[in-house]
Amino acid sequence: MNELAEWIKEKLCDLNVTNTMELTDGFTRLGYTQEELSAHQHFIEIANQLGLNTYQDKAGNQWAVWHVDKEAPTIGMGSHLDTVYNGGGYDGVAGVLCALAAIKVLKEKGFEPRKNIAVICFISEESARFGISTIGSKAISGELEKLDLATVTDNEGITIKQAVEDMDLKWEEIDQARLQLNELEQFVELHIEQGKQLQESNSDIGIVEGIARPIRLKVLVEGMANHTGTTPMNQRQDALVAIAPLVSYVNEEALKMNDTGTSQLVATVSTVNVKPNAMTIIPGKVELGIDIRSVDDDLKKRLADKIKTYCQEVEKKHHVSITVTTLVDNNSVTLDDKIKHNLIETCNNLGFKTQVMDSGAGHDVMNMAGKWPSGLIFIPCQDGISHHPDEFTSTVNLINGTKVLEGFFKTES
Amino acid sequence: MNELAEWIKEKLCDLNVTNTMELTDGFTRLGYTQEELSAHQHFIEIANQLGLNTYQDKAGNQWAVWHVDKEAPTIGMGSHLDTVYNGGGYDGVAGVLCALAAIKVLKEKGFEPRKNIAVICFISEESARFGISTIGSKAISGELEKLDLATVTDNEGITIKQAVEDMDLKWEEIDQARLQLNELEQFVELHIEQGKQLQESNSDIGIVEGIARPIRLKVLVEGMANHTGTTPMNQRQDALVAIAPLVSYVNEEALKMNDTGTSQLVATVSTVNVKPNAMTIIPGKVELGIDIRSVDDDLKKRLADKIKTYCQEVEKKHHVSITVTTLVDNNSVTLDDKIKHNLIETCNNLGFKTQVMDSGAGHDVMNMAGKWPSGLIFIPCQDGISHHPDEFTSTVNLINGTKVLEGFFKTES
Repeated sequence: MNELAEWIKEKLCDLNVTNTMELTDGFTRLGYTQEELSAHQHFIEIANQLGLNTYQDKAGNQWAVWHVDKEAPTIGMGSHLDTVYNGGGYDGVAGVLCALAAIKVLKEKGFEPRKNIAVICFISEESARFGISTIGSKAISGELEKLDLATVTDNEGITIKQAVEDMDLKWEEIDQARLQLNELEQFVELHIEQGKQLQESNSDIGIVEGIARPIRLKVLVEGMANHTGTTPMNQRQDALVAIAPLVSYVNEEALKMNDTGTSQLVATVSTVNVKPNAMTIIPGKVELGIDIRSVDDDLKKRLADKIKTYCQEVEKKHHVSITVTTLVDNNSVTLDDKIKHNLIETCNNLGFKTQVMDSGAGHDVMNMAGKWPSGLIFIPCQDGISHHPDEFTSTVNLINGTKVLEGFFKTES
Repeated sequence: MNELAEWIKEKLCDLNVTNTMELTDGFTRLGYTQEELSAHQHFIEIANQLGLNTYQDKAGNQWAVWHVDKEAPTIGMGSHLDTVYNGGGYDGVAGVLCALAAIKVLKEKGFEPRKNIAVICFISEESARFGISTIGSKAISGELEKLDLATVTDNEGITIKQAVEDMDLKWEEIDQARLQLNELEQFVELHIEQGKQLQESNSDIGIVEGIARPIRLKVLVEGMANHTGTTPMNQRQDALVAIAPLVSYVNEEALKMNDTGTSQLVATVSTVNVKPNAMTIIPGKVELGIDIRSVDDDLKKRLADKIKTYCQEVEKKHHVSITVTTLVDNNSVTLDDKIKHNLIETCNNLGFKTQVMDSGAGHDVMNMAGKWPSGLIFIPCQDGISHHPDEFTSTVNLINGTKVLEGFFKTES
C-alpha cells in the first residue's frame, strides 16, 4: 500500500503541474487555457505509463482507454483538471487520479476486464472563466449543441470560440465530440465532497443520489453616476444604496426556507460589479450574480420569484431601473439506482462507512446521467473547504476512493 | 461675441481631442497617460497661437505664460485636462479654456498687463487612476514631497513612478516642480460647479468660499470563500452578507446628519471589490471604499467614527474580520477673502447674478491655497451632472466665465 500512496502523492503533484501542494494562492487553471492543457499533458504521460491508449476528442476532452475488445461495452469514469481562480488541487483532480490509480492496481493484480475502461478528463468543467460549467461533458452528452455559446466572453473579452481555437481545436467541429448511446455503457465519477457532511458523520465514502442544479440570476440596477462631493444626499439615484439590502434579503429568506422546508436550499449573492467603481463617483450601475441551489426545483423557483418581487419594490422606492435575467435554470438530476446500490455494496464489502447523500455542487456526471446510467462517489475533504487554496483531502481518502472504483469495476467488467 | 463663441466651441473640442462633444461613452483621459498628453499638446498649440511661452515642469504640469517682465509678479490661473473613466468634457477643461479665452480677449483688446499671467494645466487632477488626486498641484505647492507615492499602483499594477517615467519625466525630479513663494502672487481657478445650486438659484456665477475635503475609508472584510452549492447557509462566513448593510447605514446616517446639522455632509460607499467574485464561490473578501465630505471637519469625523463602531459590531455578529483604514483625512480649505470680494465685485460690474457658496468637490486650487492667496469661480453645469458622459455646460456659461477672468485680471494686473 505504501507504494500506491507514494504513487498517488507524486501523480497528484504531476496532474497539478506543481512540485508542492502547499501554495498560498492555490491553483489557477481555467478552462481552455495553456495551464489546463499542461495538466492534460501530464495526464497523457501517466496514462501512457499505464499502457492506456490516449486521444483528444473534438471538444478538447482528453481520453485514456484500456482497450479490451472493439465490440465490448465501455465503462466510463473521470472528472476534470481545470480549476476556478485560486482554487484547490483536489476538485476534479481527485476523480481523474483515483480512476488512473484504480487501473494501475487492477493491472498490477493481473485483472482481465471483459469491458473497455475509459478515463475521461472533461475539459472546462468550472464556470469560472466563461460563466458556463461542464463544457466538455456537455459536448460528449450532446447538451452543448442546444446552446449558443460562440460569442460568450471571459473577463478579458476573449470568446469561447476564440479560446477553443487557441487550443488548436475547431469551433465548428466541437459538437462532433458527442458520443452515440452505444459508445458508452455507464459512467461513474469520483469527486471530493466540497462539504463537510462526511467529516461530521465520520464516513469514509459518500454515495450520491441526487445533484442539486442551480437557478442563476443576474440583477442589473441602473441609477445615475454623479460626483460624490457635489450631489446632495437627497438628490441621488445611487444604484448600490438601492440594491445592497437584497444581499441580506437573499440570505435571510434562504435561512427561513431551510427552517421550514424538507429539502435544503442554499442561495448566495456571489458576484458584485459596480460601475464606475471609483472613489469620487456615486455608483451608477450595479450588477449582482445570484446562485440558488436545491434538489427541490420548486423551492429554488420560489426564492427566485421572491427576489424578482423584491426587485420590483426596490425599483419603485429608489427610482432606479432593475432588470432580473435568469442565466441558468436547470432541473435537478437523479442518478442511476442500480449503480448506487452496486456502489453501496462495494463499500460494504470493503468495510467502509458510507453515507447516501445529495450533491449541492454540479459535476460532469450530471450531463452524462442524462444519457447513460451514471453514479457519483464522494470522498471527504477537510472542513468542507473547496474552491479555495486550503482545499485538502488525505492520501488515505484518495486510496479509499481508488478501492471503491477498483471494486466497482471488478463487479461490472 | 460670435467669433469668441465659435473659438470656444472649436478649442473645447481640441482640448478634448475630439471632433464632437456628443460621445456616448464620454471621455477617458486618465492622469499620466498618452490621452492626457495629447490634450496637453493641443493646449500648447492654442497657447502658441496666442503668443504665449510654453514649457513643461518636472511633474508634467504644462505652463503657458504671457511674459511681461521677469521682475513682475505672476498671477496664476488654470485647471486640468485629465478625466475620470468615462467622464465629461468640461470638468477641468472649462477652466483651462476660459483662461486661454480671457487672454485671447485681453490681447485682442490691446490690454497691456503689468504682471505676468500664467495658465497652468495641472497634471493628473482626478484620483481615478491611482486613488490620489491633484498630483500636479500637489507638486507645485510642495504637498507631494510629504507623501510616499512611488509604489502606489493603478488597476493594471502600474506604479505612479512607472507612469511618470513613461511620460519621459524623472520620478526623482518630480519635487523640483515646487515653486518658491515669490514665484507666484496669487492663483484663481475656474471650474464647472458639478452640482446644481447655481441652476436652481438661477445664478450665472458661483464664488467659492470653502472647499470640503474628504475623509476616505477603506473597509476590508475577510470571511471565508467556499463553494456556493455545498456550504449550508448556517455554516458560512460570507463577507458580503456581513458588510452589505453598511451601505444603507452610511446613507441613512448621512441623511440624518443633514436633517440635524447646520453644515451639509455627503457620504458614499462608492467602490466595492468582491473576491473571488465568481458565481460558484461565497464571497471570501470584500473591500468597500467610502468617501465622506463636508466643510465641517467635525461632522466628517463623527460619521467616520460611527462607521468604525458599526464595523466592530458586524465583526462580532458575523464572525468575520474587519479592518478600517483611513486613506485620506484632509481638513477643509478656506479661500482668500480679498480675492473673493474682488471676484464678487467683478461679477457685479458685469451684471451677473452670483452666489457665494462652498465646493463639495476638491480642486487643484485647494493645494495652491495652502501657499498663495487663491480663489475659485464656478460656472453652472446642466442638472449638476458631472463625472459622467452627460456632463454639460453651455457656451454662454463659458463666455461668462471668460468675462469674469478677464475682468479680474484687469483689476489685478
